[in-house]
Amino acid sequence: MDRFKIRTDLALEAKESFEEDNVEIRGVKIEETFDEESEVQTTTVVIETENGAKSMGKPVGTYITLEAPSMDFPDDAYHEEVSKILSTHLKKLIDLKEEKSILVVGLGNRDVTPDALGPDVVGNLMITRHVVKEYGTIPFGQDTIHLVSSIIPGVMAQTGMETLEIIKGVVHETKPDVAIVIDALAARSTKRLNRTIQITDTGINPGSGVGNHRNGINKESLGIPVIAIGVPTVVDAATIVNDTMENLITAMDESDRMKNLGGALGTLNTAEKYELIRELISPHLNTMFVTPKDIDETVKRISFTISEGINMALSQS
Amino acid sequence: MDRFKIRTDLALEAKESFEEDNVEIRGVKIEETFDEESEVQTTTVVIETENGAKSMGKPVGTYITLEAPSMDFPDDAYHEEVSKILSTHLKKLIDLKEEKSILVVGLGNRDVTPDALGPDVVGNLMITRHVVKEYGTIPFGQDTIHLVSSIIPGVMAQTGMETLEIIKGVVHETKPDVAIVIDALAARSTKRLNRTIQITDTGINPGSGVGNHRNGINKESLGIPVIAIGVPTVVDAATIVNDTMENLITAMDESDRMKNLGGALGTLNTAEKYELIRELISPHLNTMFVTPKDIDETVKRISFTISEGINMALSQS
Amino acid sequence: MDRFKIRTDLALEAKESFEEDNVEIRGVKIEETFDEESEVQTTTVVIETENGAKSMGKPVGTYITLEAPSMDFPDDAYHEEVSKILSTHLKKLIDLKEEKSILVVGLGNRDVTPDALGPDVVGNLMITRHVVKEYGTIPFGQDTIHLVSSIIPGVMAQTGMETLEIIKGVVHETKPDVAIVIDALAARSTKRLNRTIQITDTGINPGSGVGNHRNGINKESLGIPVIAIGVPTVVDAATIVNDTMENLITAMDESDRMKNLGGALGTLNTAEKYELIRELISPHLNTMFVTPKDIDETVKRISFTISEGINMALSQS
Amino acid sequence: MDRFKIRTDLALEAKESFEEDNVEIRGVKIEETFDEESEVQTTTVVIETENGAKSMGKPVGTYITLEAPSMDFPDDAYHEEVSKILSTHLKKLIDLKEEKSILVVGLGNRDVTPDALGPDVVGNLMITRHVVKEYGTIPFGQDTIHLVSSIIPGVMAQTGMETLEIIKGVVHETKPDVAIVIDALAARSTKRLNRTIQITDTGINPGSGVGNHRNGINKESLGIPVIAIGVPTVVDAATIVNDTMENLITAMDESDRMKNLGGALGTLNTAEKYELIRELISPHLNTMFVTPKDIDETVKRISFTISEGINMALSQS
Repeated sequence: MDRFKIRTDLALEAKESFEEDNVEIRGVKIEETFDEESEVQTTTVVIETENGAKSMGKPVGTYITLEAPSMDFPDDAYHEEVSKILSTHLKKLIDLKEEKSILVVGLGNRDVTPDALGPDVVGNLMITRHVVKEYGTIPFGQDTIHLVSSIIPGVMAQTGMETLEIIKGVVHETKPDVAIVIDALAARSTKRLNRTIQITDTGINPGSGVGNHRNGINKESLGIPVIAIGVPTVVDAATIVNDTMENLITAMDESDRMKNLGGALGTLNTAEKYELIRELISPHLNTMFVTPKDIDETVKRISFTISEGINMALSQS
Repeated sequence: MDRFKIRTDLALEAKESFEEDNVEIRGVKIEETFDEESEVQTTTVVIETENGAKSMGKPVGTYITLEAPSMDFPDDAYHEEVSKILSTHLKKLIDLKEEKSILVVGLGNRDVTPDALGPDVVGNLMITRHVVKEYGTIPFGQDTIHLVSSIIPGVMAQTGMETLEIIKGVVHETKPDVAIVIDALAARSTKRLNRTIQITDTGINPGSGVGNHRNGINKESLGIPVIAIGVPTVVDAATIVNDTMENLITAMDESDRMKNLGGALGTLNTAEKYELIRELISPHLNTMFVTPKDIDETVKRISFTISEGINMALSQS
Repeated sequence: MDRFKIRTDLALEAKESFEEDNVEIRGVKIEETFDEESEVQTTTVVIETENGAKSMGKPVGTYITLEAPSMDFPDDAYHEEVSKILSTHLKKLIDLKEEKSILVVGLGNRDVTPDALGPDVVGNLMITRHVVKEYGTIPFGQDTIHLVSSIIPGVMAQTGMETLEIIKGVVHETKPDVAIVIDALAARSTKRLNRTIQITDTGINPGSGVGNHRNGINKESLGIPVIAIGVPTVVDAATIVNDTMENLITAMDESDRMKNLGGALGTLNTAEKYELIRELISPHLNTMFVTPKDIDETVKRISFTISEGINMALSQS
Repeated sequence: MDRFKIRTDLALEAKESFEEDNVEIRGVKIEETFDEESEVQTTTVVIETENGAKSMGKPVGTYITLEAPSMDFPDDAYHEEVSKILSTHLKKLIDLKEEKSILVVGLGNRDVTPDALGPDVVGNLMITRHVVKEYGTIPFGQDTIHLVSSIIPGVMAQTGMETLEIIKGVVHETKPDVAIVIDALAARSTKRLNRTIQITDTGINPGSGVGNHRNGINKESLGIPVIAIGVPTVVDAATIVNDTMENLITAMDESDRMKNLGGALGTLNTAEKYELIRELISPHLNTMFVTPKDIDETVKRISFTISEGINMALSQS
């Protein structure tokens, strides 16, 4: 069945859209834990088979999602807690027992506030590669120091190059053992904005179509393991409209007042409804995004939380 | 009648919403001109009476709107043309025959891309007040030099103060003859984004309700004439949803396929439909905005165009 | 005697220049403490009389200097220690037992790296005034919340206005009880750069001449107590040259090889030597400053340390 | 003879230091022109032989220096004139008759004002590579469009990588025909700051030692021709001190009053004097630079002038 897929960068949301339909997904394992103290909900989705990948619209691999509802508030102690949890997961996904050379890539456009997450994270990292290369581990007073380097590749409108071209070049030249890629994501729902961190060992896979890995920033394209850390900071404008329409349709089915109204619309299936909406919305909307008005403060705070998580993970041997 | 008002910062759009309904507005005079060469459409709306103000939801005064459809393209010559037109209108609204002291205020949040228009404009202005105060007009080789000063007051979340408090303080201390206030606006329609400049002698009037001038940045609150220059760079998220719904309703009325669907919805009037939508959309949406993905380049370009227009107007005696 | 005065923004350095000459200063009390653990040296200079002020070239008041030699290193724990010490001193200089309204002013040019300290500090503050004004102290869960507001006035080349004019206007309009003013300073010696914090209750007094308080940002000009926090981030270019010359002269007096060389130069007194140097250096130098190549990282770190110190002091009742 | 070499990035200044000593340089051709209207002095230094290269301390190649004394003033028309002259020279150094793929590299640290020249230039370029790759030359309405791409590699303290590693990687991956590299330079003299543009086909050669091309960003390291455009925006702090000392020594030789003073110092040769100064100046000075206080405005203006010059050169077929 070629069912209609709604675009989301979050595996968690892809999973949920199945649950809504009460569909079981073979080849996909899900585990949920909740930390009472920090109120952080951790969902681990493991896509184990190509079949599972096909169903989910995401490559085989591990997707860890931290839902931290208070992450958009300015509470330092809380953010430190989230940094620690992030650092724990990173240490599980990257083998840091031996000295590693790690390239951190800050994707996105530093001049567009919700897209500046990646560049901002990189700006707060502890960069060590050049020091270790010149002076060894002595300045750090530790036996093992990971070689951390970083790059902010910019976006195609600024560079004229695919982000992948730049990263491939840098990887080719500096030969890191692993890459960590930070990116601002698009969520399916406004209620997840700036409250969720997704960590995955599958890298970045735009379009997320199965069998289309080559344009992605992943092990296949770079030749080294790629850990991606993403936070949804925007929702596509079309998604917002879609959500409201769905609420309308649901309301039509439920409310008495709207019953005769909903009748006809209700006969459309999800794909048909989405198609209908696409026809109705302004073509401009496809190039637009929705984001909260205080996105500057939120991105500043969360990028700091992620930097700290990475610093914690990489500074311990 | 307390008719339902859809929020827009543009007098042009307020006017259009009346035309849709074929309502005549007493006390409002409209004039339109089109420049073949630059393809700039200029609409001047003069609200002459309190009655007209009440109907339009905007204070008595002159509203000039330049619609420059190519303004979001990177064409230097075109932008210079728009700067010239802007400068001509400014010279009509401000009496610059004698030496004037002019405070230019860059409203908005420099850290949120579409809101950085005001701060960006101020960053490209020719500031002269301190030079004239110290050395007179000699360094400029002209007899009359206007004293141009500027301030970027920031936003309340950053300063803890109302923008008006800061501007009032600066006006009280430096006693300019006139203020020019630059701001990013919210449009009613995505197709107007980054293509329209509104110039008005009524200042900034948030909420735009008649009889509510005191919270505005205007002659009443500052004690000096206030010219406002605004460019719509965002659309409210709720507006986007509303637009699609209206398209849906229109389509329902027109299309055969949708006829029986539209019947019921069609019986609602505009206000009822808007209320219905409000109920359906996520409460988060009220704190969100919609903006194009390339907003960084657009704001950079347009802010430069406006700076140049102001520089032209104020540097000629 | 109208002895020659070398320009420094640090009371500590003014004091030292006396000590070099073995001159006692009446009306000036000095106290030094050293914290073994943090290795922070605290020097408190209290100028008690107008006579003392005249000798020191600085107004009557208290000058606390923290010398934290490791402050230009990236050690978070160390910086937190310095924040705590700063916060303790602020609480001594400002009476915070009752609810106070406090305006924090970030002086300097955000576009010139070593001068961006003030703006950067303000960017990390917890701003509360607008929240308390709208919702009271309930959102904070405390009985007493100080009303913190802030402003980044910019520099005269950008605004066309004296910084003092802008601050006076804002104070006039918002009526804070006390102002805290943050500024990047010029040091007398490169070894003090980015390692010293000066806290004083005398505000900012450019030129620092006695009897010239009116151009300063202080109690006399603003009508409220003004606490100034400063960090030397630059040295005047002329000072650098002067230092080398002095080393030359000292070397001439001491070294055998240079003895016959120094004879003549050695007969000049300090003022004559400085005058000689002034004649020799390029006139351009007066508009130039000297700063370390890694000033971006240092200013970022220290501004964060100061923000934290202020946040600590003002968030406790 | 292993004569003492004073560090400068400008071939013009290397040349002048010879002229001072009345030394002729074999293998070096010099041509000077002066444009009356724009008051731009153009000096072309062609180093033709390895012998010439050894004498000059710079690799074989062409060095064009534009001296535009008014370039640090805000005069748009003047800057346009300079852009045109720059564009003419670029078109002589790069064969643009056929479609070329050109990578522009903005060297330097965007967070340190005088070092932000390279990144700022790149920010104003017309980037075309991605458009041509996707849509061909049709969107431009021209038969031949050069493919312009750009990268801002950052500095080692931020990336942990050598700048050369990043550029090599990008060149390896995207295979441009030629690179244009923009950098802020260190001048020998403050009077040249922000008034001089050097264009050379030898790339960037740090240390400028002959036979040490491999660490440079040049044809040898990248495998493609490298045009470098540089503007001196800083002077090394040590240079400033040196200059004053030299003035002192000259004054000693000339003035009667100083005659007996100069005697001994005057017996030292240049290298010995420089060595003496090195011993006397603070070790901190080696990591410091000198720059004008209004460097933010100057860099903004000049970077725009250079962008325009590059845009002009590359947009014409």
